[in-house]
Amino acid sequence: MSGRLKFCGWGYEGDGLTHEEENRLLEAYAGRFDVDGFERATVPDPGTINLRAPRITPPDSLGDICSTDHMDRLLHCYGQSYPDYVRTFNGDFSTAPDVVAWAKSEADVCAVFDWAADAHAAVIPFGGGTSVVGGTEAAVGDTYKGAICLDLTGLDQVLEVDRTSLAARIQGGIRGPAMEAGLRGHDLTMRHFPQSFELATLGGMIATRSGGHFATVYTHIDDFVESVRCVTPSGPVESRRLPGSGAGPSPDRLFIGSEGALGVITEAWMRLRERPKFRASTAVSFAEFANAVEAIRLISQSGLFPSNVRLLDAMEAWLNGFGDGKSHMVILAFESADHAVDAWMARALEICAACSGSYDLDASDDTDAHKAGTAGAWRTAFIKMPHFREPLVSAGIIHDTFETAITWDRFEALHAGITKAMHTALKDVTGRTGYVSCRFTHVYPDGPAPYFTFVGLGRHGALLDQWRELKARASDAVIECGGTITHHHAVGRDHMPWYEKQIPPLFTDTLRAAKQTLDPAGILNPGVLVSAP
Amino acid sequence: MSGRLKFCGWGYEGDGLTHEEENRLLEAYAGRFDVDGFERATVPDPGTINLRAPRITPPDSLGDICSTDHMDRLLHCYGQSYPDYVRTFNGDFSTAPDVVAWAKSEADVCAVFDWAADAHAAVIPFGGGTSVVGGTEAAVGDTYKGAICLDLTGLDQVLEVDRTSLAARIQGGIRGPAMEAGLRGHDLTMRHFPQSFELATLGGMIATRSGGHFATVYTHIDDFVESVRCVTPSGPVESRRLPGSGAGPSPDRLFIGSEGALGVITEAWMRLRERPKFRASTAVSFAEFANAVEAIRLISQSGLFPSNVRLLDAMEAWLNGFGDGKSHMVILAFESADHAVDAWMARALEICAACSGSYDLDASDDTDAHKAGTAGAWRTAFIKMPHFREPLVSAGIIHDTFETAITWDRFEALHAGITKAMHTALKDVTGRTGYVSCRFTHVYPDGPAPYFTFVGLGRHGALLDQWRELKARASDAVIECGGTITHHHAVGRDHMPWYEKQIPPLFTDTLRAAKQTLDPAGILNPGVLVSAP
Repeated sequence: MSGRLKFCGWGYEGDGLTHEEENRLLEAYAGRFDVDGFERATVPDPGTINLRAPRITPPDSLGDICSTDHMDRLLHCYGQSYPDYVRTFNGDFSTAPDVVAWAKSEADVCAVFDWAADAHAAVIPFGGGTSVVGGTEAAVGDTYKGAICLDLTGLDQVLEVDRTSLAARIQGGIRGPAMEAGLRGHDLTMRHFPQSFELATLGGMIATRSGGHFATVYTHIDDFVESVRCVTPSGPVESRRLPGSGAGPSPDRLFIGSEGALGVITEAWMRLRERPKFRASTAVSFAEFANAVEAIRLISQSGLFPSNVRLLDAMEAWLNGFGDGKSHMVILAFESADHAVDAWMARALEICAACSGSYDLDASDDTDAHKAGTAGAWRTAFIKMPHFREPLVSAGIIHDTFETAITWDRFEALHAGITKAMHTALKDVTGRTGYVSCRFTHVYPDGPAPYFTFVGLGRHGALLDQWRELKARASDAVIECGGTITHHHAVGRDHMPWYEKQIPPLFTDTLRAAKQTLDPAGILNPGVLVSAP
Repeated sequence: MSGRLKFCGWGYEGDGLTHEEENRLLEAYAGRFDVDGFERATVPDPGTINLRAPRITPPDSLGDICSTDHMDRLLHCYGQSYPDYVRTFNGDFSTAPDVVAWAKSEADVCAVFDWAADAHAAVIPFGGGTSVVGGTEAAVGDTYKGAICLDLTGLDQVLEVDRTSLAARIQGGIRGPAMEAGLRGHDLTMRHFPQSFELATLGGMIATRSGGHFATVYTHIDDFVESVRCVTPSGPVESRRLPGSGAGPSPDRLFIGSEGALGVITEAWMRLRERPKFRASTAVSFAEFANAVEAIRLISQSGLFPSNVRLLDAMEAWLNGFGDGKSHMVILAFESADHAVDAWMARALEICAACSGSYDLDASDDTDAHKAGTAGAWRTAFIKMPHFREPLVSAGIIHDTFETAITWDRFEALHAGITKAMHTALKDVTGRTGYVSCRFTHVYPDGPAPYFTFVGLGRHGALLDQWRELKARASDAVIECGGTITHHHAVGRDHMPWYEKQIPPLFTDTLRAAKQTLDPAGILNPGVLVSAP
């Protein structure tokens, strides 16, 4: 790895799929779509891309941390969404920020806020740049004189570790791997692994309510936050370190999910744990989807709290290159730093068996089981997935995901409604049959968080419009079926129209009032969470 | 039971301690204070109490639901705090509401809001009337033309049950027992049992972030709320039923803990569970307090999630009439509707043993163990405790509790700091040695929620001032030692000065902005959470 982020693609230059892996991936899709191959688009040379001249100039005092360099602006234009990749291939960077500012301290953050307020420029807080919902795109419209991307990856330290309470004070700009590396010396870990873990920053995870590795109890990063420190244009807000409190509405909960619209999360005390010493993991196979769902419902309501209880429907497994395309899989895992988890796994497997699930009992005894068998295959696929986007877009394949949550009583109708809507939409939009699959990423006693993948054979030149229509159909279906527009991908710009349908209008008004209090000049990520009045 | 609430004392007329129980209680205290007996104050005849004439008159349209009856006004003046009892004995009801309005519907709630805004009167939402922090006292000052107590106990229905998701839509004014009775027919239970359960209403529990029966995971009512419907003076706010969501800051979290200052919680979808079929409960005894604390810390971080893991220090056990006054007790319990809990209990007891705890292994096998032995004695004492207040006040004994939460690394210093501060305060205020004890009500992986009891021999005529000084010293110590001013008793009026020290000022400003949005006339529970500007 070069340590330099890719211009197009996931992660760092030198990292990614091998040629063979990429070919296998596209051959599989060619087979699925019954085509000989794909017309491949090529990534444009960054040097050939037109950017408008910066509309604003940083004051001299900020010269050291600011850049208007062509490549810096390109690399801070987009996140990792499907339309971000399409526009990258198209060489369309019309929303690139005018200036990139790298904050190394809270003083830098404040100085950028002050400059922006004076210049009437928008400030886009930027962590890992892994948003899949347009959360960091400076598409702020013409009412602003310019846009400053505030890169926070310089705030990258584990500041303090409390080994007794299992907590640490950590800066918001640190990326997942650096944070875990900083904790490892204390024999601690957060064990919150969103798919974006490699690049995502702690502050970004908190600001977007990221979903991690645990499928139950500790699902969102919300549950790991002990306190936050958030720098707003009106000043800093810091909550007390408390394991729990009943003193009025939680201050932390205002900033968890604030998506850069209220302030910049510069620090947080995070709840940690010891590294797991005991594990059990196995895959359970179900002939009937409804039986797999029922097993997971019962497990979610059992109080067993598995670390993983992920459903992959037959299509989802097959699209990821394993399973026979007929069986639905439940990946079930327990882990503990304290005790053997045999009793837990035994009871969960009893529940699965009672719902006609079948499994290979021996596999569950292996402490490395999470890296072996179907569970291991899924784990490998999950980690590789972010690398699939670039070749798929290049091949004109539309492949995207969306996710929601719903109570158990309405899951069947939501699943049927969304599946039907997306099959119809794929046919309408691409003129041919596409694929729709479903998995559960997280489950709660009162309902699952279903995660849908849709795949269609798109057309170069039309990909953006095709995707937009499919995304709108998907989002309409989610809201009509009673779900949330996002369980852990966040709102960003892409989900705003549906977020506004979901959220009670008076709550939106209170959020607007909060923003007016904390960001009176309205410079922070304008248009995200709070639309223009 | 008569079904009529007591004028002075917990619960309903006819309910409470027997004469023998009351005598035993006071004899025990006489022994502790080494006095022959106590001068007993008597509860005044309600008919002899002066109330000022109602300052406002309900409009004719509200005549059916409004009352200015003397007894209605008396019964809606106070909650269940120590100073509430002292003032009841003193016959001081100067803050009684002018009018009591019984809402039977949301339309009634809205009508009362409209009247209050027109009349510039304050509205005090009133559920079970069990606040121990002055949360429902109409001490709103003279800027309001009058005060209306809005009694919500007419909103008392379980409206809808979702057996699949284990959830129900329930009205906010229903009391604990009626709610559980309504769920029992569906073989469901919420199993959230605050000490105020008998009288407290669901909406009141949500508005005050009540703490329930479970010592881990499901500690606050927050965790049981799937969605809320809150009627504000600006209109209704209703969130979607969702098991989880990542769409911006949680709307529910604005209303959870809003203490009647933002609106009235008229309905909520609540998460339920099946009734436990498997139980294990035992008491573990520790010679050293620090060892008991360490055992609980390790259990809280183990992922075993006991339903109960309550520490009672030796003094706390002794004050409640069991234990030898030397041993510290940990009451440990597991329960499940799904599986036997032997493996869980076995591991928790291993942890206790490693910390030098001793226990009677046989007792833990009894499925009725939670009603037997030390655990059972504690359970009985816990349920009876609300009945102690009236005789203790009558005897001039100052006996109150306060609670907080703190990370494990700071617990020892907080415990020492508070204990010392309260011993000193008791000596200063009462002129003689008092008692200070500590228990844990709830525990988290990163820290406990310690609950302190202080007892002193007060003086009739001075009780209110003595209590105020003791309460101020306790609250100062809590805040100085880094704790929260309340883990689950709420803020109310009594905690406001310390709440304002604890909460970041900019968060208070956003709360004020939210209130301005939802309650523009500022009629709702003025002075609670948001002080006068």
